[in-house]
Amino acid sequence: MKNVKISNNVIRRMPRYLRKLDELSAQGVERISSNELGRQLGLTPSQIRQDFSCFGEFGQQGYGYNLSSLRDEIAAILGMDRGYQVVVIGVGNIGHALLDHFNFESCGFHLLAAFDVDTDLIGTTTKSGVPIYDANTMGVFCQKNRVDVAVLCVPPERAKAAAQGAIRSGVKAIWNFTNVVTGLPEDDNVVREDIFFSDSLLALEYYMADNIDQEARRVARQRQV
Amino acid sequence: MKNVKISNNVIRRMPRYLRKLDELSAQGVERISSNELGRQLGLTPSQIRQDFSCFGEFGQQGYGYNLSSLRDEIAAILGMDRGYQVVVIGVGNIGHALLDHFNFESCGFHLLAAFDVDTDLIGTTTKSGVPIYDANTMGVFCQKNRVDVAVLCVPPERAKAAAQGAIRSGVKAIWNFTNVVTGLPEDDNVVREDIFFSDSLLALEYYMADNIDQEARRVARQRQV
Repeated sequence: MKNVKISNNVIRRMPRYLRKLDELSAQGVERISSNELGRQLGLTPSQIRQDFSCFGEFGQQGYGYNLSSLRDEIAAILGMDRGYQVVVIGVGNIGHALLDHFNFESCGFHLLAAFDVDTDLIGTTTKSGVPIYDANTMGVFCQKNRVDVAVLCVPPERAKAAAQGAIRSGVKAIWNFTNVVTGLPEDDNVVREDIFFSDSLLALEYYMADNIDQEARRVARQRQV
Repeated sequence: MKNVKISNNVIRRMPRYLRKLDELSAQGVERISSNELGRQLGLTPSQIRQDFSCFGEFGQQGYGYNLSSLRDEIAAILGMDRGYQVVVIGVGNIGHALLDHFNFESCGFHLLAAFDVDTDLIGTTTKSGVPIYDANTMGVFCQKNRVDVAVLCVPPERAKAAAQGAIRSGVKAIWNFTNVVTGLPEDDNVVREDIFFSDSLLALEYYMADNIDQEARRVARQRQV
């Protein structure tokens, strides 16, 4: 199914589709047309049909998409059925937020453990029951347990060392919340996904400025009339 | 400058350019070709020239881009010189992480205050010196101070009410960390920017699965030979 190269933009839209389908399912909706799905997501129906056609043929002319089968297809495309195992490195504010409130299971991941250097935290468990171990024992832990993903929540100055340690321990992917580039070579075949808060805030800033400028131009035009 | 409609993809690349330029400046680089910038960002040089051409002409044939002028241009495009003022609503783990560690100023924002309902927090200041006020007094605060952006860090079940309150108080934008859709009407002209952690994790999952499948196909091909 995934023999062809799918564009990043299409991949990035898949989780949005998934969220929308879950929202609709919760409302009792069972099928939806590409027109209606497009309207609700601010995408054109042809964009939606094109996105899904990258992965094969879903949906039926005149019937639309069956929500539950479409959801299964998207989940399989995203690899949510692969049972990847994850650990969190760094139990500060962000680490705590993820450990206590983020639903890894609903994304198809099993959260095994967290690691920190703080002796007050080591040996305790989080509210949600996840054990916190000494960061220095992570290598040993990874020898005993298959760990696929490391969630990086350490302070920025420790980001690089923590990423290197995780990769040496054999993780296949790093989910990076440190807001800095971990600066590792590109060729080690480890998947990296960064959440840069500033990228999001700067985009918001652009759209604000754009809104305000448009409004100013509208007012200026009205004055000219 | 912003009379034409710029695609979201171009806007979303601007913060990436900015980060890269800052990284290069810190290394003492003063100018760069679109070839080299493209190589470092995994984009084609023509993509880069096309992106910048949306906003006017930067750079010089054969010379490349002057880093400092290019940075100024991008900062102006993003509206970083507008001096927007921001408050944080909800001082839990995510709120704390942003208040203590996120550099709003470097994105061009002034952080004025935070709001919470927890009486233990109300009246205190964060490590970084930001005052935490009673969430019920936010309306009054916004009458006395121009607040442009509300950063939503409340628990998901309070997201909608907090967003509505912020909009009633006159904010122009909501930066949403609640990981749920705030479900507000689209037509009130408020800019919304959501950080959905799951969107990022699901994309990572796809790329992991894709990596593993590619490797499996490579091994299978070798066996056939």
